[in-house]
Amino acid sequence: MAPAICLGVTKPFQQVIDVSSGDPHRAGMAPMSFVRQVLAVCLYPELLTEKSLPLDARQRAQKLMGACSGGSVGSYSLTSCGIPCIQKSVAEFIMRRDGGVSSNPEDIIFSSGSQKTMVLHLLASGEGETQTGVLTPRPCPHTLPPLLDEAGVTLVPYQLMEDRGWTVDLDELHQALKTARGRCEPRAIYISNPGNPTGDVASKSCSHQFLVLNNVYQDSVYGQEKEFISYKRVLFEMDKEYSETVELVSFHSISSACMGEAGLRGGYMEVINMDPAVNKYLRSMQDSSSPPVLPQLALEIMVNPPTPGQPSYKMYSQGKSKKSIIMGVYLSERACEFLNDLPGVNCQPGMGGVFLYPCLHLPPQMIEEAKMLGVEADVLYCQKLLEEEGICLGAGCENGHEDPNYHISPIQEPLVHLILFLIKFDIYFIFYFLVR
Amino acid sequence: MAPAICLGVTKPFQQVIDVSSGDPHRAGMAPMSFVRQVLAVCLYPELLTEKSLPLDARQRAQKLMGACSGGSVGSYSLTSCGIPCIQKSVAEFIMRRDGGVSSNPEDIIFSSGSQKTMVLHLLASGEGETQTGVLTPRPCPHTLPPLLDEAGVTLVPYQLMEDRGWTVDLDELHQALKTARGRCEPRAIYISNPGNPTGDVASKSCSHQFLVLNNVYQDSVYGQEKEFISYKRVLFEMDKEYSETVELVSFHSISSACMGEAGLRGGYMEVINMDPAVNKYLRSMQDSSSPPVLPQLALEIMVNPPTPGQPSYKMYSQGKSKKSIIMGVYLSERACEFLNDLPGVNCQPGMGGVFLYPCLHLPPQMIEEAKMLGVEADVLYCQKLLEEEGICLGAGCENGHEDPNYHISPIQEPLVHLILFLIKFDIYFIFYFLVR
Repeated sequence: MAPAICLGVTKPFQQVIDVSSGDPHRAGMAPMSFVRQVLAVCLYPELLTEKSLPLDARQRAQKLMGACSGGSVGSYSLTSCGIPCIQKSVAEFIMRRDGGVSSNPEDIIFSSGSQKTMVLHLLASGEGETQTGVLTPRPCPHTLPPLLDEAGVTLVPYQLMEDRGWTVDLDELHQALKTARGRCEPRAIYISNPGNPTGDVASKSCSHQFLVLNNVYQDSVYGQEKEFISYKRVLFEMDKEYSETVELVSFHSISSACMGEAGLRGGYMEVINMDPAVNKYLRSMQDSSSPPVLPQLALEIMVNPPTPGQPSYKMYSQGKSKKSIIMGVYLSERACEFLNDLPGVNCQPGMGGVFLYPCLHLPPQMIEEAKMLGVEADVLYCQKLLEEEGICLGAGCENGHEDPNYHISPIQEPLVHLILFLIKFDIYFIFYFLVR
Repeated sequence: MAPAICLGVTKPFQQVIDVSSGDPHRAGMAPMSFVRQVLAVCLYPELLTEKSLPLDARQRAQKLMGACSGGSVGSYSLTSCGIPCIQKSVAEFIMRRDGGVSSNPEDIIFSSGSQKTMVLHLLASGEGETQTGVLTPRPCPHTLPPLLDEAGVTLVPYQLMEDRGWTVDLDELHQALKTARGRCEPRAIYISNPGNPTGDVASKSCSHQFLVLNNVYQDSVYGQEKEFISYKRVLFEMDKEYSETVELVSFHSISSACMGEAGLRGGYMEVINMDPAVNKYLRSMQDSSSPPVLPQLALEIMVNPPTPGQPSYKMYSQGKSKKSIIMGVYLSERACEFLNDLPGVNCQPGMGGVFLYPCLHLPPQMIEEAKMLGVEADVLYCQKLLEEEGICLGAGCENGHEDPNYHISPIQEPLVHLILFLIKFDIYFIFYFLVR
């Protein structure tokens, strides 16, 4: 392969490998065939008789089309919150997940993926000391701080404990709350479980006045003796004074984890214990943009995958386990091992989600150079890696990281590809070189 | 067929016919096969070799997949504004439409359909006398007033001239502006061309400091000697003092007119002469919600339909003309004629779009009854029509109408179905009965 050329300049690498984004398909992950088959038939119903497609995919398509207004995926959703029978499917999925804790279909709101923005705008109020504060993990997804800022909400960071596998520490939470008071009015806490970008899975603990939960990797938990326990379930096992009052919004999406359908843009939120007036307002905000239909159908498949005995069961469940369990345990372990073997790199094992979050002990001269250039040292590291090797990584400081250790945030699967690629071309020294 | 039952009550009709919404597929309009074939192949690329699908549909799918990040419709769009080569296709389409007036691909921003909200939020500023006012036609789409209200913008109505085919009158515009000053700060004008709900097509005229244009029915102009002339084109034919300063945002969508893919939720806006800082902010607002991929592909097909010689050309162009020209001229004329033949009903001919907007001269006792019930008389009329005949129409007052004549806003195609249905079952007296 010829060297890459960028803006007329020949680069010392052949292609850019982007391991910075949480975009699984862009990183080469194959889609789940069953999902794509069903959606293709829904779009072009003439395929209902196409024998080369599995019977259960065609039957599912027929059923889902029947749930659409006018029998067509081209019609608006029946309600501004989504297609009612898919709201019901999702509520049943949540009940199964949470060991029978009830879920109301009317609490499920579909959207095309900007729900966090909407909820943050709802939370926003006051100015200065009375401005809403949102407790936000550090590190957090790099897309979150600009959203908070745009919504007019103060970010109140709470540090996750790297040496304890990126867990939440209650003392740290209390300390964060204490420090925030006087500066803003903390009204909510944001939790990503499994963690983005940290790859951890939460144990039972936590309570606060308002919860904003990101659970988009809930079907990708692979750590040994780890299972996904939703905060909703924990909340409902607590006293009524909490279970009936704590307002909770929980997100799930088809973009992440084993489905990875980021381009379709679909997700839902479950809204619990919300003040009726706020709930009404939330729905009226939805009114102006009826959620797209196809992503809702993909969500329906996510919560009701093919069952044993159906033609697509084996392939779907193998595909899912390949992506979550095998990729998780095997590849994540291998990537983690590789990273920990590099001098100057330290990586907590991943337990869920798609990210690893290795810590870099950068050499003093690099930290000095960064200071002189007026950038963070992890940004400089990532710039050098991109310029010299064509590898695009996210710098830890983009995740709100401020502690003395530097981090990078690559996603696991392409990271593994990257590592295999590096080994194949005998260039794993790049880590060694830059981190020594 | 058995009579309809609603909440346990048997109704005097067999089914509800909804002619109130602009949802063509829900009303029974068939989708364009080529669009659906291409999207189905993009979702399930194994169909690339499926001989039962037209070759040009498969070739187009291959080309479009190549434009997607990672070659997959499951990846995020490459930029927050959309897929660059589709931005280019749209800009070329606009140039052809506007007789060569230039269009910059970077001015095209895709979204999943809540763009009006975004632009209105951008326009919003001030309070009381300094609050942004938006000149808004009366009647206007019924979804617009709540959007203005939510964005914190004052609605400044300007009356369209029904007796002159729903045209804009410049004296009326000036009057509206004059009245508004002191109450708010008019900063923009909203124009729907072809008109929603009025079905008119604008002639050359207009200028203002900021334009928000809704051109979603631009490919459905069918009035004799009428053609779609964009305000952008008119603007660019004016002096530089206007053509280089008037800020203009123009919307188009796959939901409306001949494509009717409302469930996919896709559209674009072209942003002209925008202040660079505002432009930058607009793009940063997009960042948090990468536009969905499939609707962009449908937009690409809309602006680059099959060409003569390609296998799908005949069917596509026939489908399009059937929907816009035949439905437009023939059915619209027939529907209009039927309505004008009814005593107490007066209807301006439709020139474009999907709506007709007949005027009802309601009997005094009905107006009296409505007053006693505390509702608008056209709402009462629509309620009676729904209760007694199962026909769901939009009341004119929902379109901001306040003049002494009452209106209803049905969409044409289902209206025609409705009329044929009424004639078939010998029940066209409902209009006669209620309007006499």
